[in-house]
Amino acid sequence: MIQLYHHPMSGASRYVRLIFGEYGIAAELVEEKVWLRRADFLAINAAGTVPVMLDEAAVDPRRADGPPPAIAGGVVIGEYLDETVGAMSRDRRLMPENSAARAEVRRLVEWFLVKFEAEVAQHLVHERVFKQLMRADEGGGSPDSAIIRAGRNNLKAHLRYLDWLVQSRNWLAGNRLTLADIAAAAALSVLDYLGEVGWDSEPAVRDWYARLKSRPSFRALLADKVAGLPPASHYVDLDF
Amino acid sequence: MIQLYHHPMSGASRYVRLIFGEYGIAAELVEEKVWLRRADFLAINAAGTVPVMLDEAAVDPRRADGPPPAIAGGVVIGEYLDETVGAMSRDRRLMPENSAARAEVRRLVEWFLVKFEAEVAQHLVHERVFKQLMRADEGGGSPDSAIIRAGRNNLKAHLRYLDWLVQSRNWLAGNRLTLADIAAAAALSVLDYLGEVGWDSEPAVRDWYARLKSRPSFRALLADKVAGLPPASHYVDLDF
Repeated sequence: MIQLYHHPMSGASRYVRLIFGEYGIAAELVEEKVWLRRADFLAINAAGTVPVMLDEAAVDPRRADGPPPAIAGGVVIGEYLDETVGAMSRDRRLMPENSAARAEVRRLVEWFLVKFEAEVAQHLVHERVFKQLMRADEGGGSPDSAIIRAGRNNLKAHLRYLDWLVQSRNWLAGNRLTLADIAAAAALSVLDYLGEVGWDSEPAVRDWYARLKSRPSFRALLADKVAGLPPASHYVDLDF
Repeated sequence: MIQLYHHPMSGASRYVRLIFGEYGIAAELVEEKVWLRRADFLAINAAGTVPVMLDEAAVDPRRADGPPPAIAGGVVIGEYLDETVGAMSRDRRLMPENSAARAEVRRLVEWFLVKFEAEVAQHLVHERVFKQLMRADEGGGSPDSAIIRAGRNNLKAHLRYLDWLVQSRNWLAGNRLTLADIAAAAALSVLDYLGEVGWDSEPAVRDWYARLKSRPSFRALLADKVAGLPPASHYVDLDF
């Protein structure tokens, strides 16, 4: 069995859950409140971040009789699943075969899981969600409107780039659905839950996102709920 | 021929140059001042960051008659070189074969190229180097001592983690030299140029770093010079 430590408002966690859905991988989800910095969780991922995957079938060659090795981080789990599952999935594989094409997929995965996360999600999700879930002594409190403003401005720039990508290509990295689309949709879906995406001014991005949102792998994400913070009214609509 | 857009004070650029050295890859180095945001450079990497590699031998399957595709970002170039060169390098390959072991290497590469970069290098290198190289209208100016202090504190935490890794393993990710060691040494070498690493209090990390520093692949890095900012006196010494 596979266990995934995740959070519903983490784009990288959603990325892994979408890959699970696309490849038909069953996994037990464990919600981790990373701001609590639990010692048991830090022991499996010193960075203290989600997602972290434990795969009972995996073997750590350095400690063959030890516990299942932790596979930590969205980018890293994506590579691991490509090697262990994707490589046997023929035309359902989410990575191309050609190395230059794979590099382009990886560039975009990093863009949406690292750059978008740092420039948009860490501003908006931290201020609007995590600070509400945290107690005052954990860093909780009122949102900082200057940080929210900066996050919204950065989101506009990222949507412009996404618009350019979807207008020049069928899918983000070329003619096929790849991990690049999964990463971008996962990252964007967190902001969509919060009602932060102005779809009316982004018709091309909306068309691309609607194609992803209607895939069976997306259903679990659309059922996500954060206590005390219901999703934007259009969040679950496939026709938004 | 391979071209690499890089900067001598970029840890991720040094990571790629070390991989070139380990695999015996000849490349033309082009120094890029990323803060100038040159339009020609943004056209090959929209993120505006170094390193970016152009490989004349690579083919973009979407534009087979186009220019060589840009391979952008340290992590991405490392994967590309593992697939195109490392996979044929037998026991000189810098990645293990086992998928769980590969995940551990990737976790550490991301740690030193992304997390260390954000928490240490972007503070210390930006304030102490880039702000001196920039004109005032490009964002240059006096270093901010509060940011430098924060970077130095973060560096101590990273050195503690590195100390734990080198005390529990022969190389960072296990028994063999891998991309994890290359990434950590590349990131640390920039701080060492600036004299920021307190080696006397880190004997185990120093022993590990000395093993890497004495490898032929490191020579090009030890010859690096930044205008107006000579390296710390021990920077080139193999016995420091």
